[in-house]
Amino acid sequence: MPLAQRLSNVETSAIRELFKLLGKPGIISFAGGFPDSALFDVPGIQAAVNAALAQNPGAALQYGATEGHPPLREQLATFMQSKGVQGVSPDQLIVTTGSQQALDLLGKTLVDPGSKAIVEGPTFLATIQCFRLYGADLVSAPIDGQGVDVDRLEQLIAEHKPRFVYLIPTFGNPSGALLSLERRKRVLELAVRTQTLIIEDDPYGDLYFDAPPPPSLLALSHEVPGSRDWLVHCGSLSKVLSPGLRVGWMVAPPDLLGKATMCKQFSDAHTSTFAQATAAQYLAGGHMPATLARVRQVYGQRAGVMVDALRRELGDAIDFVAPQGGLFVWARLTGAGGKLADGAALAQRAIEQGVAFVPGAPFFCANPDPSTLRLSFATVGEDKIREGIARLAQALG
Amino acid sequence: MPLAQRLSNVETSAIRELFKLLGKPGIISFAGGFPDSALFDVPGIQAAVNAALAQNPGAALQYGATEGHPPLREQLATFMQSKGVQGVSPDQLIVTTGSQQALDLLGKTLVDPGSKAIVEGPTFLATIQCFRLYGADLVSAPIDGQGVDVDRLEQLIAEHKPRFVYLIPTFGNPSGALLSLERRKRVLELAVRTQTLIIEDDPYGDLYFDAPPPPSLLALSHEVPGSRDWLVHCGSLSKVLSPGLRVGWMVAPPDLLGKATMCKQFSDAHTSTFAQATAAQYLAGGHMPATLARVRQVYGQRAGVMVDALRRELGDAIDFVAPQGGLFVWARLTGAGGKLADGAALAQRAIEQGVAFVPGAPFFCANPDPSTLRLSFATVGEDKIREGIARLAQALG
Repeated sequence: MPLAQRLSNVETSAIRELFKLLGKPGIISFAGGFPDSALFDVPGIQAAVNAALAQNPGAALQYGATEGHPPLREQLATFMQSKGVQGVSPDQLIVTTGSQQALDLLGKTLVDPGSKAIVEGPTFLATIQCFRLYGADLVSAPIDGQGVDVDRLEQLIAEHKPRFVYLIPTFGNPSGALLSLERRKRVLELAVRTQTLIIEDDPYGDLYFDAPPPPSLLALSHEVPGSRDWLVHCGSLSKVLSPGLRVGWMVAPPDLLGKATMCKQFSDAHTSTFAQATAAQYLAGGHMPATLARVRQVYGQRAGVMVDALRRELGDAIDFVAPQGGLFVWARLTGAGGKLADGAALAQRAIEQGVAFVPGAPFFCANPDPSTLRLSFATVGEDKIREGIARLAQALG
Repeated sequence: MPLAQRLSNVETSAIRELFKLLGKPGIISFAGGFPDSALFDVPGIQAAVNAALAQNPGAALQYGATEGHPPLREQLATFMQSKGVQGVSPDQLIVTTGSQQALDLLGKTLVDPGSKAIVEGPTFLATIQCFRLYGADLVSAPIDGQGVDVDRLEQLIAEHKPRFVYLIPTFGNPSGALLSLERRKRVLELAVRTQTLIIEDDPYGDLYFDAPPPPSLLALSHEVPGSRDWLVHCGSLSKVLSPGLRVGWMVAPPDLLGKATMCKQFSDAHTSTFAQATAAQYLAGGHMPATLARVRQVYGQRAGVMVDALRRELGDAIDFVAPQGGLFVWARLTGAGGKLADGAALAQRAIEQGVAFVPGAPFFCANPDPSTLRLSFATVGEDKIREGIARLAQALG
């Protein structure tokens, strides 16, 4: 049976293979990329679905507009306002089936076979695969603890004239990096000056530990004239409320939003109205601030425990920037003292010691750094984090 | 901003424009393609979501497998067994975000720009657009009241060597046609003999009025050796339970299913586990037989009223086969007595008379028959159906 050419652009991920090993009893896993189920506000979600089915069961269970359930679009506009975004009305966003679908719709709308696009190195693995399935030729822009290197990004834009630049400016996956305020402004100015579309993926921005991060590119866009015309913003309830709802959203310039909506119509007609109506009731019910406060507190504490344990147990064999939010510590094995400096090799040894993480190399679309690794602290209790990092130190030898 | 080439393959649908007129007060609409919200089993769905959140809230709200929520895959396999399908295990199906997503994944997996594919003339509009977005070159196979003309289909397969043939064998949208048992067997034999993939889209098969229809192609496949290797079956809970859940599924040969699953991973990660867990509880709770009995009875009665009214009011100006299931009457204006024989022109006049329907021409990927129209009886009460058809007769003059 002949398959579409585009399938040859993508291979089954090495990470998926690793995940098969996680069933081993007693494994402490830092490999996940998901929030802790124990933190889900089940009573709040139950109350929200009850309200949705009581108030307008037809709307919660019937077909709905491809653009999204109107009450949810209103709530999401209000939610963004609460985070400093100015002037986004409900009709300037569409609801997507998780922010993964926003990426898919952007790929479908913007990418031809061979189209250039710039992503961070490292970046979210499913982004790489998603855009490559549409034939994108990805270019890797280097990052440091302050996010993407804007000078280098400017050179890459000039060199490759990409269809777009995809960034996770706030607590990126896997990097945990936080793009500085100064760089954020420079990215927006660069977008206007070079007429290059910037895609801001922002699933983690609400998960800060102490001080809030700088405003999102979307929130900053009113300070940089013209930048809203070159900016797409993807949001998600997955990391803060529930991934299982599959509710994300996308803000984009009107023409692009219209084309993405048409693509969505033929992708899944619309996102579950049952989930959308539930999410709308949840937001309208005012539960979100307390939920955010709780997850920030728990993840912040777990991050602190992991950072301390890594420093204590691994010392100068590992190098990392302590995350200020999100779900991940991104680290590099230094090879100090002649120790192992290969993430994939360490991952194998670590499994034998009863601890799992994801090696960093697959997160690069080009020029992988094999010494890197991603450790998630989100779903592991504090004692288990200490134990897991001690096992990691043993694996490193 | 340069957009992907594929967007130029698809235009905004004429039907969407028509739908904007439906807000006019007092309009009786036969234009919809959706089930009646008043028939949704709200208490049953409320009980199902309560059970899902009580029994395993983590699974209902967390990320899940791309293939689908395991309890739902089991329930869907059992549901298909109850409809005569033999030997489909849960791992031979994946859950999709409505059956629309199954079409999208098939397009992504199978269609290159210029790939030939055969669809019925007429067929589901969103199918045409979905496959064209991937660059498909669609070929139209003629149908009659017994479904697709298999002799002609065989010629078209020989001539075009398509990547696949897409059929809605049971109460098709818009045709309402029912593929006969004899033709079903011939289609399966043709698939094996010509090594051509057949996609059976089956959202309406449960909505029969009197006698059950012939078995689905999937159910018949065990009678035609080798045919399961050339058969994809798409199912949906949208028309029988709730479109808003966005729960569909796809059965396919293992290799193809694996590739479609990979594509789904980068399309939306997975279908809402919240909706999937609810649907699984609903099916496990044994509510479906009573729900099916109720919707069959109501739609059957409405269909009968519409058929009688059409014959009484429009006489020989209209020609149609009375539907035996589904949501639609598909009709042709004969022009008898010098009356209007153009569906689009009649649609305009009908709106002025306070009744709406969808002209048939857009449902053809080629060689449209402008005399056709689609009338849905699903969401209109019996008295309003009589009144609406009387208005239609006035519009026809």
